[in-house]
Amino acid sequence: MRKNYLLTPGPTPLPPEVRAAMARPIIHHRTPQFQAVLKEAAEGLKFVFQTKNDIFILASSGTGAMEAAVINILSCGDTALVVQGGKFGERWTEICKAYGVTPEVLDVEWGKAVSPAELEKRLKANPKIKAVFVTLCETSTGVVNDIAACGRLIKDTPALLVVDAISGLGAIDLKTDDWFCDVVVSGSQKGLMLPPGLGFISVSPKAAKFIEVSKSPRYYFDLRKAKKALDKTDTPFTPAITLIIALNEALKMIKQDGLDAVFARHRKLADATRAAAKALGLELFAPLAGSDVVTSVKVPSGLDGEKLVKTMRDTYGVTIAGGQAELKGKIFRFAHMGFIEEFDIIIGISCLEKVLAQMGYEFPMGAGVKAAEEIFLK
Amino acid sequence: MRKNYLLTPGPTPLPPEVRAAMARPIIHHRTPQFQAVLKEAAEGLKFVFQTKNDIFILASSGTGAMEAAVINILSCGDTALVVQGGKFGERWTEICKAYGVTPEVLDVEWGKAVSPAELEKRLKANPKIKAVFVTLCETSTGVVNDIAACGRLIKDTPALLVVDAISGLGAIDLKTDDWFCDVVVSGSQKGLMLPPGLGFISVSPKAAKFIEVSKSPRYYFDLRKAKKALDKTDTPFTPAITLIIALNEALKMIKQDGLDAVFARHRKLADATRAAAKALGLELFAPLAGSDVVTSVKVPSGLDGEKLVKTMRDTYGVTIAGGQAELKGKIFRFAHMGFIEEFDIIIGISCLEKVLAQMGYEFPMGAGVKAAEEIFLK
Repeated sequence: MRKNYLLTPGPTPLPPEVRAAMARPIIHHRTPQFQAVLKEAAEGLKFVFQTKNDIFILASSGTGAMEAAVINILSCGDTALVVQGGKFGERWTEICKAYGVTPEVLDVEWGKAVSPAELEKRLKANPKIKAVFVTLCETSTGVVNDIAACGRLIKDTPALLVVDAISGLGAIDLKTDDWFCDVVVSGSQKGLMLPPGLGFISVSPKAAKFIEVSKSPRYYFDLRKAKKALDKTDTPFTPAITLIIALNEALKMIKQDGLDAVFARHRKLADATRAAAKALGLELFAPLAGSDVVTSVKVPSGLDGEKLVKTMRDTYGVTIAGGQAELKGKIFRFAHMGFIEEFDIIIGISCLEKVLAQMGYEFPMGAGVKAAEEIFLK
Repeated sequence: MRKNYLLTPGPTPLPPEVRAAMARPIIHHRTPQFQAVLKEAAEGLKFVFQTKNDIFILASSGTGAMEAAVINILSCGDTALVVQGGKFGERWTEICKAYGVTPEVLDVEWGKAVSPAELEKRLKANPKIKAVFVTLCETSTGVVNDIAACGRLIKDTPALLVVDAISGLGAIDLKTDDWFCDVVVSGSQKGLMLPPGLGFISVSPKAAKFIEVSKSPRYYFDLRKAKKALDKTDTPFTPAITLIIALNEALKMIKQDGLDAVFARHRKLADATRAAAKALGLELFAPLAGSDVVTSVKVPSGLDGEKLVKTMRDTYGVTIAGGQAELKGKIFRFAHMGFIEEFDIIIGISCLEKVLAQMGYEFPMGAGVKAAEEIFLK
């Protein structure tokens, strides 16, 4: 008899409304009944994306939506600028390479945000750049990039701004239209509080022109097909019906709270997590550019970071994330995204304290929880 | 207060065990807990596919798995033979074209099965054919093809046999290994009794060699990445966690009944449906090659076929499928696949009788239900 707690940057915990929606009998997708579902989803997504652009719902994980972005706007031989400051920035580079697009990589030190000035320099230096790929929140490091600044620099150039908002959408601010984001991709299992299995992609009028002329081979992710279907409130292939019905439940919750309240909640949870880490004598991995989505914390020297994560999860039922790739064992990632509130953070920090103490790390017991409580009291 | 009944060839009704599984709290996918789920799914899928081959689970609908088949085994400039006897045969052709593969189309009259002799002739006539694409059950017409015969003809050639078993797997027999099927693709929302959102693809050792040398651009559906992950009981990208957990519930049910019992149930339901149609004076669309998955019935002349389907669904809550593409309004499709038993068929036929009578079609009232009951009594 053990309770489980999920504090990972995707999947995030599912609200009971979402879980109940998935347990309903299924309906057929080529019916007026499901068209009403699609219409509601389209409106709700536009609210969360803060856009008037078309948003396509794909039956795929977020990476499928990233691939859809690359192959629908670029062709073999094209050049793209990729901001690469973590594992998910690298994914843009990998997808570009797989399709013969030349990625010009703007390497950013892991744990830091991209410098808009540097981005501008690189963009001006190479007029062949047709698209700039940036990550809203780089989940592997916890860093948030300044998308508004990127948008200002790119909007009057011929290039498109493509944003990976998989981690972040519905948790932190992203003004698709006001910030001139031509393509925004996201996934279901993060701020939208759903299981994985849906990808989302928004397309600006500027980006739509690229889609018409892209020569990349594509079928399942072909947004020309998706657009024809969308205009009839339909999907080109069988959609992930159950997840879309559940999506509407999640969107309803976000609408009820309002985006500002949702973002403020994430900020408070992040502030509490960061304060707790500091109070425990731990060092933040991204002290200057940490997101309100996930907080990366350095594993104290001498401690086994992988064991810390495993013990919290397998012994006490509290799942946080370890470091990925070059950060494996060096950081742990404590997410505060989606259907998470104050007491989830208290549980997570309390469990962290317990395991740190058991592993012989010295700190004032209770200091982390106290620091979080003080933030929450404000 | 209306009850709804689903008699469509995908999605099919969800067992309560599947629905309950989807309502559980979600777990993280990079954990030993989810590895156990993946291991169980792999074993269960091998049982249903009747294979020792690797089976990859994709977060996509069935079309994504079809695309994965084409791009992982063929390259631009290759030639493939496509058996095309309906909308889903055409889909193979479309995907091939999208990726520069030359489809040599073996056109089969809609409503008929492919002639193995014709297939052999076409295969021998063109030694450039690298793969043969066949549909197990062509959902748009209700026809079942003789995959065993196709396999016998292809196994000693250099070509691969690729089977679209999206409709059919887990409902009618498909012996992947014994019938020499190199690649079998399927989806979740048919015989496997799940919502849409999962694609499956099995790969024989012969097909694995094609994957190594294929030059088609690919990333999300790259089975080389999937194979590396599978060997570590992992997935290359975030899997559709909830659907895979539900899959294990469905697989458990299929295992408990045994494949033979499952196939026998589908045969009986199909027999009853066909008998009922005949008793109502209706004509089967595919009298010689009708599958045990879905029965296509011609709309009697003078009757509005689309209105028939709409009235059953929107007035009485019984959803069957109409005709697609060139068959729109000309046939209706009555599915008996997945979590369907005798009394579901009785309901469907009873509703059909009601609406036929209301539309002025003359027939002996109750004759359809009686014919079905007689089959079920046997």
